[in-house]
Amino acid sequence: MDSHLPIGIFDSGVGGLTVYRALHEQLPNERFVYLGDTARVPYGTKSLATVERYAVENARFLAAHQIKLLVVACNTASALALPAIRKALQMDVVGVIGPGARAAVKSGPHSTALPGVGVIATESTVQSGAYTQAIRKVNPDAQVIERACPLFVPLAEEGWADDEVTRTIAATYLADLRIGIDTLVLGCTHYPILRQVIQQAVGEEVKLIDSGEATAREVKALLQEKDLARLTLPTGALERHLCDDLDHFYVTDAAERFARVAERFLGAKPSRLEAVEVFGEDQLLA
Amino acid sequence: MDSHLPIGIFDSGVGGLTVYRALHEQLPNERFVYLGDTARVPYGTKSLATVERYAVENARFLAAHQIKLLVVACNTASALALPAIRKALQMDVVGVIGPGARAAVKSGPHSTALPGVGVIATESTVQSGAYTQAIRKVNPDAQVIERACPLFVPLAEEGWADDEVTRTIAATYLADLRIGIDTLVLGCTHYPILRQVIQQAVGEEVKLIDSGEATAREVKALLQEKDLARLTLPTGALERHLCDDLDHFYVTDAAERFARVAERFLGAKPSRLEAVEVFGEDQLLA
Repeated sequence: MDSHLPIGIFDSGVGGLTVYRALHEQLPNERFVYLGDTARVPYGTKSLATVERYAVENARFLAAHQIKLLVVACNTASALALPAIRKALQMDVVGVIGPGARAAVKSGPHSTALPGVGVIATESTVQSGAYTQAIRKVNPDAQVIERACPLFVPLAEEGWADDEVTRTIAATYLADLRIGIDTLVLGCTHYPILRQVIQQAVGEEVKLIDSGEATAREVKALLQEKDLARLTLPTGALERHLCDDLDHFYVTDAAERFARVAERFLGAKPSRLEAVEVFGEDQLLA
Repeated sequence: MDSHLPIGIFDSGVGGLTVYRALHEQLPNERFVYLGDTARVPYGTKSLATVERYAVENARFLAAHQIKLLVVACNTASALALPAIRKALQMDVVGVIGPGARAAVKSGPHSTALPGVGVIATESTVQSGAYTQAIRKVNPDAQVIERACPLFVPLAEEGWADDEVTRTIAATYLADLRIGIDTLVLGCTHYPILRQVIQQAVGEEVKLIDSGEATAREVKALLQEKDLARLTLPTGALERHLCDDLDHFYVTDAAERFARVAERFLGAKPSRLEAVEVFGEDQLLA
């Protein structure tokens, strides 16, 4: 592996851009190749077998683009498909669940007594129990409460982040959680977009953990440990900006909509954005 | 074609169940085979090429199940993929856009002057302009206003149909429409679930057109015209119920979630529900 290679990131769609933003902040010297599987989004209501198949296809697509490390930005894919992806790829693969869980435990102490750790995520992620497992791996006594908040994704994508309606929905989902938790993991890439509304709903005393930020910190440490971190800006670059032309974005469908939501999430549209197909050999040989 | 064969219905997911309900009401003697493409839902934010490919795969799957007529319940697929489906299949194919548009014009008179016809639908359907085209085909002078209401689908699926939040969102989307229209087409299969809230938002004086109901009436007329209607209940059946075991439901993923939302929409879970793969020869030979 060469430290000059870019880092690959995939997500089911546009949500992973919050993970890209966190990585970009922590690692300004790195280049990124991002794949959003917008033809098959959302993963959060799909089954294990389907999410595994899609995730492996995405991972292979990025591996073919000469990356030094793969970040699975999608929580659902991290929860369900990490073993399958690692089996398919010859490189370090980092999901967002482990880092999010470790950051949540660190923010504790959490014991069998309340308050414990709350996790909000998509239906599939919650049903998988992956966050509870990952948190208990670090602290077997931790009390974990998981809850699905399915409307948060469309509200974030449609630009309702700062609206009374979103505050009401957040209160419906979360108001009763505040008595049981002192830490809340944002277990879906879209949720950082609604951070303020979520903080209001659970109260200022609850600490929010952004799994994407926790992942960026672990990726930084891993690259340093493996001597794979870029030490200087890419040749020719004087400074870096989100979505500049050193980062390459691919989507499997509807590039125009992706660019629009990217601007909403990051304040900038990708300079290099391409629509591609990722259907792998798997499916063709099935 | 044999009048004893069932009618095929496909949708991108669970929304087409409102079209199934309308067909079932109009045609109680008929059996139905329903396919919900839950592995690839939603179609409403996907591109023309992708929607066409998915729609043709779904149509071929149903054609292989011995049906006498195909109803494309999905508005997005009806807007974008009807020519491709008709090219791929040797049978009558009925979409929901034409019937919805014809019913809207009939409810008029609509002229170049306001009030005109409003259409609410998904992003892709609105962008296609299919409803405006279909309405102008019947009345070239009709004034048509189309508007996307993307949050309505998740609100319906998550069971927020009768909530203050949904009323507020509906008012935001629709409040200004009421001065321009006297008829509003529900151009997405999910919207009949929110019918009451939508009616409140546009005012009682606006006539709502359910494209699914309009389609069921046209299918009934077409079957009678072609002598393909069943004249008696299927053998052994004393009466029919929604989701009884004479109707067969297939989904491409997450059958349990489909059954849960079906119960929310229809008051009953499908008696016969199976998860299947529909990836067609197209893709395998691509």
